[in-house]
Amino acid sequence: MKTVKIGIIGFGYWGPNLARNFFALDGCQVKYIVDLSPARLAAAKKLYPSVNTTDKLETVLDDAEIDAVVIASPVSTHFQFAQKALVKGKHVLVEKPMTRLVSEAEELIALAKKQGRVLMVDHTFLYTGAVKKIKEMIKSDQLGKIQYFDSTRINLGLFQHDINVIGDLAPHDLSILSYLVDEAPASVIATGVSHTDNKVENLAYLTLNYQSAMIAHFTLSWSSPVKIRKTLIAGTKKMVVYDDLEPTEKVRVYDTGFKASESQNLLIDYRVGDIYIPKIEQTEALSALAKDFLAAITTGKAPLADAQKGLAVVRILESAEKSLKNHGQEVKLS
Amino acid sequence: MKTVKIGIIGFGYWGPNLARNFFALDGCQVKYIVDLSPARLAAAKKLYPSVNTTDKLETVLDDAEIDAVVIASPVSTHFQFAQKALVKGKHVLVEKPMTRLVSEAEELIALAKKQGRVLMVDHTFLYTGAVKKIKEMIKSDQLGKIQYFDSTRINLGLFQHDINVIGDLAPHDLSILSYLVDEAPASVIATGVSHTDNKVENLAYLTLNYQSAMIAHFTLSWSSPVKIRKTLIAGTKKMVVYDDLEPTEKVRVYDTGFKASESQNLLIDYRVGDIYIPKIEQTEALSALAKDFLAAITTGKAPLADAQKGLAVVRILESAEKSLKNHGQEVKLS
Amino acid sequence: MKTVKIGIIGFGYWGPNLARNFFALDGCQVKYIVDLSPARLAAAKKLYPSVNTTDKLETVLDDAEIDAVVIASPVSTHFQFAQKALVKGKHVLVEKPMTRLVSEAEELIALAKKQGRVLMVDHTFLYTGAVKKIKEMIKSDQLGKIQYFDSTRINLGLFQHDINVIGDLAPHDLSILSYLVDEAPASVIATGVSHTDNKVENLAYLTLNYQSAMIAHFTLSWSSPVKIRKTLIAGTKKMVVYDDLEPTEKVRVYDTGFKASESQNLLIDYRVGDIYIPKIEQTEALSALAKDFLAAITTGKAPLADAQKGLAVVRILESAEKSLKNHGQEVKLS
Amino acid sequence: MKTVKIGIIGFGYWGPNLARNFFALDGCQVKYIVDLSPARLAAAKKLYPSVNTTDKLETVLDDAEIDAVVIASPVSTHFQFAQKALVKGKHVLVEKPMTRLVSEAEELIALAKKQGRVLMVDHTFLYTGAVKKIKEMIKSDQLGKIQYFDSTRINLGLFQHDINVIGDLAPHDLSILSYLVDEAPASVIATGVSHTDNKVENLAYLTLNYQSAMIAHFTLSWSSPVKIRKTLIAGTKKMVVYDDLEPTEKVRVYDTGFKASESQNLLIDYRVGDIYIPKIEQTEALSALAKDFLAAITTGKAPLADAQKGLAVVRILESAEKSLKNHGQEVKLS
Repeated sequence: MKTVKIGIIGFGYWGPNLARNFFALDGCQVKYIVDLSPARLAAAKKLYPSVNTTDKLETVLDDAEIDAVVIASPVSTHFQFAQKALVKGKHVLVEKPMTRLVSEAEELIALAKKQGRVLMVDHTFLYTGAVKKIKEMIKSDQLGKIQYFDSTRINLGLFQHDINVIGDLAPHDLSILSYLVDEAPASVIATGVSHTDNKVENLAYLTLNYQSAMIAHFTLSWSSPVKIRKTLIAGTKKMVVYDDLEPTEKVRVYDTGFKASESQNLLIDYRVGDIYIPKIEQTEALSALAKDFLAAITTGKAPLADAQKGLAVVRILESAEKSLKNHGQEVKLS
Repeated sequence: MKTVKIGIIGFGYWGPNLARNFFALDGCQVKYIVDLSPARLAAAKKLYPSVNTTDKLETVLDDAEIDAVVIASPVSTHFQFAQKALVKGKHVLVEKPMTRLVSEAEELIALAKKQGRVLMVDHTFLYTGAVKKIKEMIKSDQLGKIQYFDSTRINLGLFQHDINVIGDLAPHDLSILSYLVDEAPASVIATGVSHTDNKVENLAYLTLNYQSAMIAHFTLSWSSPVKIRKTLIAGTKKMVVYDDLEPTEKVRVYDTGFKASESQNLLIDYRVGDIYIPKIEQTEALSALAKDFLAAITTGKAPLADAQKGLAVVRILESAEKSLKNHGQEVKLS
Repeated sequence: MKTVKIGIIGFGYWGPNLARNFFALDGCQVKYIVDLSPARLAAAKKLYPSVNTTDKLETVLDDAEIDAVVIASPVSTHFQFAQKALVKGKHVLVEKPMTRLVSEAEELIALAKKQGRVLMVDHTFLYTGAVKKIKEMIKSDQLGKIQYFDSTRINLGLFQHDINVIGDLAPHDLSILSYLVDEAPASVIATGVSHTDNKVENLAYLTLNYQSAMIAHFTLSWSSPVKIRKTLIAGTKKMVVYDDLEPTEKVRVYDTGFKASESQNLLIDYRVGDIYIPKIEQTEALSALAKDFLAAITTGKAPLADAQKGLAVVRILESAEKSLKNHGQEVKLS
Repeated sequence: MKTVKIGIIGFGYWGPNLARNFFALDGCQVKYIVDLSPARLAAAKKLYPSVNTTDKLETVLDDAEIDAVVIASPVSTHFQFAQKALVKGKHVLVEKPMTRLVSEAEELIALAKKQGRVLMVDHTFLYTGAVKKIKEMIKSDQLGKIQYFDSTRINLGLFQHDINVIGDLAPHDLSILSYLVDEAPASVIATGVSHTDNKVENLAYLTLNYQSAMIAHFTLSWSSPVKIRKTLIAGTKKMVVYDDLEPTEKVRVYDTGFKASESQNLLIDYRVGDIYIPKIEQTEALSALAKDFLAAITTGKAPLADAQKGLAVVRILESAEKSLKNHGQEVKLS
């Protein structure tokens, strides 16, 4: 089988992780690493002496040998770089969030379709053993109908200056939510605060309302003294607590539930039962994602983290931003 | 000194705890326990053979020997019972929330002032060793200016039918917030959902916005598979995590902070330092509250959990209810 | 059915718990509470105005109405008081450890048999939901053959002066071990240290060797900055971690094991699978024990915590003491 | 300054970690990697194309350019390889435990002295931020006199076939103990069990007795369903809990203590105070150890993990082995 030749665009925070996984992947060769910073290019060259480094995206896109690009540059460049690459007939894997705007994401999807090329988004979490296990339980109806999804993703972290805490942290949870729950949200309410002069929110809360009795909520912070990565996913049959910081017990399944009953004073039909902690597959998620991208290119099979999932996330982010700027006004999602 | 004679109104869930503490208190005699349920009155009589039991509030209010009443009946009765008692010249300790409406709370405050009687609210948490320790740290400026207050109070609990999860659980956290932070919130946004037919919300989120860069947020649930009672209180100097479920380590102080700086790409001026877990006083909070009520009656000194603190809580609850019923619309607090 | 009349001997640390449970028990009446301290007798009288208090054991034993005594006096008095009570034809429930010496325990067993009276030991843990659940799993062969039992019972606790940390804390774990594992230990090794002038060990380690490949070990301390109550029970099929301090997750079952294989370098046939946390019954163990004592008296059915289990514990304690005094010399158990 | 040229002997489990750190170290060049397995040599060559690989130790020792060797081969070869290297005038860093026998360790020490070469042992833990912090607190007398050292190092791990669980796991804790506590133990008692046919103990307990009231104890297991790496170090002033699995809170200092007093019944002079969690330096310990080895070679300054510390560990291990084979008989250390 022909080796797939790729270029990696951006070698900042996440690029090195993508490079490491694509270098380790059979059937694929990383031919270029692109970055504007000479220091970053030197670092890339030291780790991978065989790779070509350049600060010109065009060099990569004009190379007819190149089959695909992996875009790990700042969010504001995603749309433009992906568009150029698709126009040149390259397959594209783009870092999350896919684009800033819904219109941009839609345009890329149409373009990829027209060009017959793969367009995939790096929603790494969909490839983790924990999320796959929860998806499996939902599919086999072990949890029942999902009632709420409540996620906390907080720590004392880097304050970004071109993206707020929702844009930085929520894509992880929104991609998981979109993957696990079929129903799309009906409206978004976002509140938050900036503790710096640049008006970029470092602490924010996001509520998603649904047509059904489902609700989703996200607590997002760069300013917490403790690190928490915890999601509660409650079904009518069972409830799951997914704690990504647990080394071996990431997923806990509670045989716990409640049921409406019209008793006189208190509704006491709730049930607390056994807890079950399934063994979770330990393979690196990013490696599985890289493999999925390669398979999509060579076999035509749709990848798990496809562009529609990327669009679903952008749709919520765009509305959240609007709500946030209007003091938490409800923004309907069409 | 003259023994203070009191009547306890309501012997349901919380009444027995109040009774136990007032029976144990020197300088005070519980003369009556009132409840509508013969079974509850029998239970009271078995535990305290000396007490008079009755289902008539008037019997207590008409007894000239009675100095004070402790009201632990359903929320909907608080205003009416407290009003009657104050009119008859009794001192009043009322369960939280003080009343349903702000106008009711204000009327009671005016009445108590006119009658020259103590009006106090059972915000028990203000008397815990943990909250007292945090207050002390804030007063001595160890934490700096408070930046946010983020509380999670969730468990699989009794579904009330006459009060939603905000009315049931938020008063605890709102009273703590009002005690610790001097600034009053400027607006309220509340979202939530009911998973039962009776439309009473069992899961809700509350955001309080402030004039300053302060923000407060509350996650409240009767439907969580895990029990959590955790509050993050971040100051510009230090941050506190208050976990009420920890048996001996309720308060953790993080020598951690962040500071705005206009660096080029990332604001990296954050600091992670030592953690300090102060020893917390272990005395029962309700016992201290009972003592404070007695002292207010006998010495005239204002109690810690005074009616103004009760009113501050009702003010937020009333607006939260309005926001909740309007899909999270922002409600300004005058 | 005739009411069983009992006397409680000793109202110090544990006596009040026994009193509370026997007072609450139907079919039984606590007629006497005995203690040498007038202050303790006054405290008993205040809580239970109906009870007779006395500092004379004989008053109770000479009362023909009395069917049974519950002995919660210091360990050094257990043998003598139980003996006297049995001679007078009373049923006996004695605090753990049953006696100081094996010979004493054997004499009491013979005496109880001769007199046709119940002789029971307060090994409360056998009545907990957690231990009952583990016993059930062992009986149904879910765990396979038990390979080891490793218990840690440490905290910063009261330093006793008439009994060392083994005598104080080990009876709990030894009674659980004896209940769960049928095989009796073959020898005992105990080491420890006293950090006080009175030579009473406050920190000790106990190893029990068996004919089979089973081993048991106990870490016991009054001098730990942290409180731990944790036991690992490993079977050839599954392993259990029993943490008595966990409010709701006391028993964790690991689908984990290892198997000898003669591979060249490393024996890697071990298996890490799911974890399961069964729901545990929440009823108070001491109440179930009191009920079991009453049933033994009225129906003749042997109680769970019978004198043979008490003897098994004393046998190990006596040998442990001997080993401890001989710098950890192995002491064989016949 | 002249570059130090080294050869790494053994590229199995730990060798790659040593190689990675020495490759990254300035002032040093890894010239050879030696292993008997062609597969391991191929793996080394792939990672480090510049290195010479060989299965002949002599090739390295006969190369006059080589200044030092790092020995990470099986324990049974440590003595012989280190001896040969010292004879050839090479500096030696040897994996823990230094040798099987005390006599071997002593012979190496004498040889290194005679040859004027560095002899160092890879007790990596001495270079961790946690152990350095605890050492600092002991040195500045914040903890007072150490009363006990109680370590638990258990997990479900690889069963070695040429070394039992004491030889495999205890060197870590014994090196920490020897570093922190000046007094040497007076005697050793070891008990344990093998659950496999090869008689290699997979679960063992070690007690060290001291002339003073100090005691040390070690729980070591390859057969635990849970992973624990926890050490309690109690001083007369303060106590430390060192949990190596905690990502950010490895060291907890308890302002807790007890004091003998001759009260009548119970010694209640114990004290529970604040807890303090110091920030710990995060640098990789093995990198610091490699740097220390290089400095010892180039400057002549004695390394922290010197051969005397290695010998102290071997001394205890040898006696523990003897005690273990004699059913826990006490073995005196001269």
